[in-house]
Amino acid sequence: MGLFTDHYELTMAQAFFLSGKKETNASFDYFFRNPPFKGSYVIYAGLQDLLELLKNYEFDRKDCDFLHKSGFHPDFIEYLSNFHFGGTIYAPKEGEIVFPVEPVMRVEGNIIESQLIETLILNTINFESLIATKASRIRFSSGDKRVIDFGLRRAPGIGGIQASRAAIIGGINSTSNLLAASLNNIESTGTIAHSWIQSFDSELEAFRAFSKSYPEKCVLLVDTYDTLKQGLPNAIITAKEMEQRGERMLGIRLDSGDLAYLSKKARKMLDNAGLDYVKIIASNQLDEYVIRSLKEQQAPIDIFGVGTSLATGRPDAALDGVYKLVESNGIPRLKMSEDYEKMILPGKKKIIRLLDDENKFYADAVAIENETGFTRIYHPYKPDKSTEISKFKQELLLQPVVEKGKQTHANLSLKMIAEYTKNRFNQLHDEHKRFEFPHIYKVGITEKLMSLRTQIINKIKNETSLVNKNTNSRELK
Amino acid sequence: MGLFTDHYELTMAQAFFLSGKKETNASFDYFFRNPPFKGSYVIYAGLQDLLELLKNYEFDRKDCDFLHKSGFHPDFIEYLSNFHFGGTIYAPKEGEIVFPVEPVMRVEGNIIESQLIETLILNTINFESLIATKASRIRFSSGDKRVIDFGLRRAPGIGGIQASRAAIIGGINSTSNLLAASLNNIESTGTIAHSWIQSFDSELEAFRAFSKSYPEKCVLLVDTYDTLKQGLPNAIITAKEMEQRGERMLGIRLDSGDLAYLSKKARKMLDNAGLDYVKIIASNQLDEYVIRSLKEQQAPIDIFGVGTSLATGRPDAALDGVYKLVESNGIPRLKMSEDYEKMILPGKKKIIRLLDDENKFYADAVAIENETGFTRIYHPYKPDKSTEISKFKQELLLQPVVEKGKQTHANLSLKMIAEYTKNRFNQLHDEHKRFEFPHIYKVGITEKLMSLRTQIINKIKNETSLVNKNTNSRELK
Repeated sequence: MGLFTDHYELTMAQAFFLSGKKETNASFDYFFRNPPFKGSYVIYAGLQDLLELLKNYEFDRKDCDFLHKSGFHPDFIEYLSNFHFGGTIYAPKEGEIVFPVEPVMRVEGNIIESQLIETLILNTINFESLIATKASRIRFSSGDKRVIDFGLRRAPGIGGIQASRAAIIGGINSTSNLLAASLNNIESTGTIAHSWIQSFDSELEAFRAFSKSYPEKCVLLVDTYDTLKQGLPNAIITAKEMEQRGERMLGIRLDSGDLAYLSKKARKMLDNAGLDYVKIIASNQLDEYVIRSLKEQQAPIDIFGVGTSLATGRPDAALDGVYKLVESNGIPRLKMSEDYEKMILPGKKKIIRLLDDENKFYADAVAIENETGFTRIYHPYKPDKSTEISKFKQELLLQPVVEKGKQTHANLSLKMIAEYTKNRFNQLHDEHKRFEFPHIYKVGITEKLMSLRTQIINKIKNETSLVNKNTNSRELK
Repeated sequence: MGLFTDHYELTMAQAFFLSGKKETNASFDYFFRNPPFKGSYVIYAGLQDLLELLKNYEFDRKDCDFLHKSGFHPDFIEYLSNFHFGGTIYAPKEGEIVFPVEPVMRVEGNIIESQLIETLILNTINFESLIATKASRIRFSSGDKRVIDFGLRRAPGIGGIQASRAAIIGGINSTSNLLAASLNNIESTGTIAHSWIQSFDSELEAFRAFSKSYPEKCVLLVDTYDTLKQGLPNAIITAKEMEQRGERMLGIRLDSGDLAYLSKKARKMLDNAGLDYVKIIASNQLDEYVIRSLKEQQAPIDIFGVGTSLATGRPDAALDGVYKLVESNGIPRLKMSEDYEKMILPGKKKIIRLLDDENKFYADAVAIENETGFTRIYHPYKPDKSTEISKFKQELLLQPVVEKGKQTHANLSLKMIAEYTKNRFNQLHDEHKRFEFPHIYKVGITEKLMSLRTQIINKIKNETSLVNKNTNSRELK
């Protein structure tokens, strides 16, 4: 997987290598600036996949041949052929709830290894966190209803394996994706498509055959020809025949038309036939907003099947996480920007989560790594806004997950990660969860961190005026 | 890769198997209803990846164990352990331009094998065609400027490998994705990130070091601290020093701020310093619309780096391709819908592309497979709209790409596929390419196909009224 990266990582790595800087220490932060979906939070996901990819992050013979053809230097290729990531990674637990600006992950190592894995981190964490966040929104609007991931057919290629995994972390109950289920040891779900019904000479014959094949898990798709005039009546006949065999139909599925209208009609028809135990499953272009609307209309739907929106995280389709150098050679670094809010927080830092007396999240404090004793945090860009934090319980959010190249803990099961997300999500106040203009979660920085940033900015500004003076005098000659 | 599918494919396959229907012949169509991005066309991509996946589409020991645990029947699992796709697939050439409603692919085989590969086809073709289509739009708005794919860091996980491949098919010139480049034998590109500059004590020192490492491919990122006051002046100093060494700087890259404003300022500063050969590369949230706007403003940008939008195909993020049964047991089949336009075209069909006297695409005719001699095509849903087609040159669009499980042709290089797309795109009239309300491309059906559809619809409608009569009389008892 060594080549699963951007070309420029190797361009830079080679230049560091050839200019004798390969032992320079570096520290990079992963963070994002805007939560997706106009929300306030992100579910941090992808860590375990990242650690697995990292274990296999090597350059084999074929990779080296390709790099040779691409014009890289033989000495550098030789170095890469023995490359293993030997640095240290700090991260929250997978499934944690995280917020903009704060340094969600930190990578320390020599400048080559910590630079080289940039693309791997961004690709994996950006995508899985996006999908887990989408999933948590769908979970939130679905309340206690069961939700199944049907997304693989519209998922972004083989990325669909990661999408289904992340969906479970965010709170989806089950997936149609067999490979994701097998890899993550979770349940998969699925019944029939229209083709099953079409392949028989009549719908009733198709329903009967399916009910005999799956007496215990019979879910019938009722919209192949005409939902209310044919599908439902045929499903009811089949269910009644199952009753005579001592069986119970599990459910019917609606996959087109107005789901509020059809589910109400279907519920009535089923109840009138004494089939109140038959569940109604609905699918077709669902997302958190459609589900909320269906619930507002009191559509009697028991299970939601969600596909495209979940597997692609649309409309945003990406989390804007970045990976920035914050220290090298022991010196804190930053990047300026025309936009003040795109400024980086320099140096090695920690995140302290502050819990209120309900044990819910009050705010996150970003401090210099070895700093203690601070009692007040400041808005990262508006220093006149600050909060006294002494009274809150504190949690340290980042822990080493890889130390000197070795993973520190055993992998958790996907179920355990999803359970963690569920618990943490309960600790997030509801006003941060709403879809329209959610309450912004407080992320503050300490006074020391603020001073460090100011100090570096001033140094850079001095340099800028120096450059201009030199350039101007050069131009005058 | 056997488990890379939806659970319901196996549920159905098992029921077909256990009910003795496994030798039933079936024919499925892949088609889409709405081109993405409010456009008029789709670039058909993913075929070669699909054929590779299909070759490896088997159920190994581990897969079988998982299916056993999931409750599938031992006889069926035994059958799967020897499964290979042995059917036939008809498809256009990869890179072809295709349109809504027409049967873009057809799969024939026994009902198990043709059903089982549904998810594989949908997942691969939907995603790669989405990205190739996005790429062709970006290519269209970029004119003859060079465009580079920078998307891997925001791409949907490992799906990013497919995204970069599809981007090249659609007309992107190069990619930063080393793995995609290596797998597809194409060029990759990349220079430096902000971290390179930050890791030095001054920007000028960083630029100098990079120019010495890459005298022939030196592209400097100039927005780390201050684009116009520091980055550009330092880049100019470096370029002048390179001239003294007999070298020429390749370019500078702008990655933030107002790209129109900054590129004009940068061009002037470079030209004034006698550096008119130094190219300007721009990146940062580009898509086909931003590029069009930059060109309208005559921003002097030579190369565009496009990332997130390209790799995710946002905002749509999915192509809505479906896979529907059109024939089984020798009988043409269809699926009805509340929405008339969602009705399926039944039976085995072919697509004939009609070329006008400029050798450009005039319309596509969908006919029954063995039908000949038709001279008129009809709007698929408005039969009073028709066109006489005798005078047009004809091309048969679908050819067998797999026959009885064996691939019929050798794989093409990605360059050749991209070249084919380029040529075909030139055969598409410009009014189909515009972004706002593009001219809808004509796809018509023959009279025979229309009659076949009517005949099956009538048969289903009769059945529906029969069901209702039976249900009503049952309810009366």
